[in-house]
Amino acid sequence: MEKQKQVILGIDIGGTNVAFGLIGKEEKKILWKDSEPIHQFSTAEEMADRIGQKIQNKFELIGIGIGAPNGNYYTGSIEFAPNLPWKGIVPLKQIFENKFGVPTVVSNDANAAACGEYVFGKAGNHPNFLMMTLGTGVGSGLFVDGKLVLGSDGMAGELGHFMVVPNGRPCGCGRNGCLEAYASSTALIKQYLEKSNSQETISAKDVVDRWKNGDPVATEVMVNSIEILGMSLANFVTIHSPSMIVLFGGWAQSGESTLEAIRSSFEKNVLEIYRGKVELVSSLLEGSDSALLGAASLVF
Amino acid sequence: MEKQKQVILGIDIGGTNVAFGLIGKEEKKILWKDSEPIHQFSTAEEMADRIGQKIQNKFELIGIGIGAPNGNYYTGSIEFAPNLPWKGIVPLKQIFENKFGVPTVVSNDANAAACGEYVFGKAGNHPNFLMMTLGTGVGSGLFVDGKLVLGSDGMAGELGHFMVVPNGRPCGCGRNGCLEAYASSTALIKQYLEKSNSQETISAKDVVDRWKNGDPVATEVMVNSIEILGMSLANFVTIHSPSMIVLFGGWAQSGESTLEAIRSSFEKNVLEIYRGKVELVSSLLEGSDSALLGAASLVF
Repeated sequence: MEKQKQVILGIDIGGTNVAFGLIGKEEKKILWKDSEPIHQFSTAEEMADRIGQKIQNKFELIGIGIGAPNGNYYTGSIEFAPNLPWKGIVPLKQIFENKFGVPTVVSNDANAAACGEYVFGKAGNHPNFLMMTLGTGVGSGLFVDGKLVLGSDGMAGELGHFMVVPNGRPCGCGRNGCLEAYASSTALIKQYLEKSNSQETISAKDVVDRWKNGDPVATEVMVNSIEILGMSLANFVTIHSPSMIVLFGGWAQSGESTLEAIRSSFEKNVLEIYRGKVELVSSLLEGSDSALLGAASLVF
Repeated sequence: MEKQKQVILGIDIGGTNVAFGLIGKEEKKILWKDSEPIHQFSTAEEMADRIGQKIQNKFELIGIGIGAPNGNYYTGSIEFAPNLPWKGIVPLKQIFENKFGVPTVVSNDANAAACGEYVFGKAGNHPNFLMMTLGTGVGSGLFVDGKLVLGSDGMAGELGHFMVVPNGRPCGCGRNGCLEAYASSTALIKQYLEKSNSQETISAKDVVDRWKNGDPVATEVMVNSIEILGMSLANFVTIHSPSMIVLFGGWAQSGESTLEAIRSSFEKNVLEIYRGKVELVSSLLEGSDSALLGAASLVF
């Protein structure tokens, strides 16, 4: 009987879906992947069971890497994630190690994406870079001198919860005016529906497409959100003077003209000493591949 | 003849004064110090000459460490510092090495203060901490895993130029709404004089004292500035999840009730996952000692 391939299970838990894939230890690429809507699982154990059913016997599992909102590297738990169905502290590492019997590493989903971008994406030559993920929520990962910043308690890099507009739009975290309330995919949709007084089902990509086709409501939403995003990125540059910012997530990867608008707001707002010095790019990695590879790279 | 003591010349360039001191290589403390108003020097060379006159023959000089606004560790220059009399790029390292013939290291003044706090102050057991200097300007130094963050080009840690109020008060950097325009000593004075329609000569300490004595204008200024500072610190915590924030500079070191007001705004605004986890303290180091020691520690 042929020896089974050794694989890492990479899991990307997002506010909408959980994506999971098997990454070959030797191949260093995704051999198989799948995803499920997250809100069907009333507990993290249910999610672990479903993933277990889907991957069973495919390969020899040697480790699990999980990227999750508010995932804490040191404790292995999700802590108070505003966009997930499970509240409070969820001991993810323990749940997965009990079920699968292999070492499990948990990190912030955006931190995992940043690792993926550093190892497999555009940031390889940028030891000081900032990853911003603009999905259901807004997350971030900071690399300083080629190392992911984890912070004193493993919870570093929550730049989506920078309050950028005093007393601004309500955020899922319970506070007001966070960047996430303006620049996440969810925020683009919500703002569009509010301003157009509509209840249709649309995606962030639809809002972007309508903006590009001249729809005035979409234009108002996008111009405002891009201004706030560009100003926030200009602010973030003062933290560790990165040589690159990588934007990841559907709407930020919607083409060069979107990126050019973000760059324009960024350069207008940035402090003189940083002007023209920062490469602002969108990720080349598709969908959740970056996060899956990044989550797996936590184990490698 | 007795052998002369070996010393490092530590220099702290601020928007109001330049402080300088001789730090014993063996004693690791300040043996002598002095300062001069900065705006009398139309060039950095003039300043170097004056410092040279004051220290001549005192000890054996073996190195120079300089903390300066917008000081760049990699290039040894000051670059576009809004609060200094010299504009553009000032090649400080070159000027001092030419004049004194000893190795010279330049860094951001707040970065130097952070090094001083880590080596000689309260932050010694906090490898992840944030230093905020609230003086003529507002500066910052980030320590991640016990190392000062310099960034890709040596210009990291300019959190004073986070734009915290969209279209807010004008800042010396030419933009609007920077934290510095609310929380620097200069900003406290300016806001007080504007609101009281007065032209008297007062210090930031005077504004703090009047607030504590119930003066309504001072109260309005302080409550607003402390709210903005507390919110900003709450935001900054999301960057690298520090276990300590050290506030340095006259008004932030004006006693426990000031600090308690800042803490209260901080805890109200901070994201749930960081609440109660961050020690917010004022520096024990006096006046410019922290910066002098920090500047010298760049050479040690």
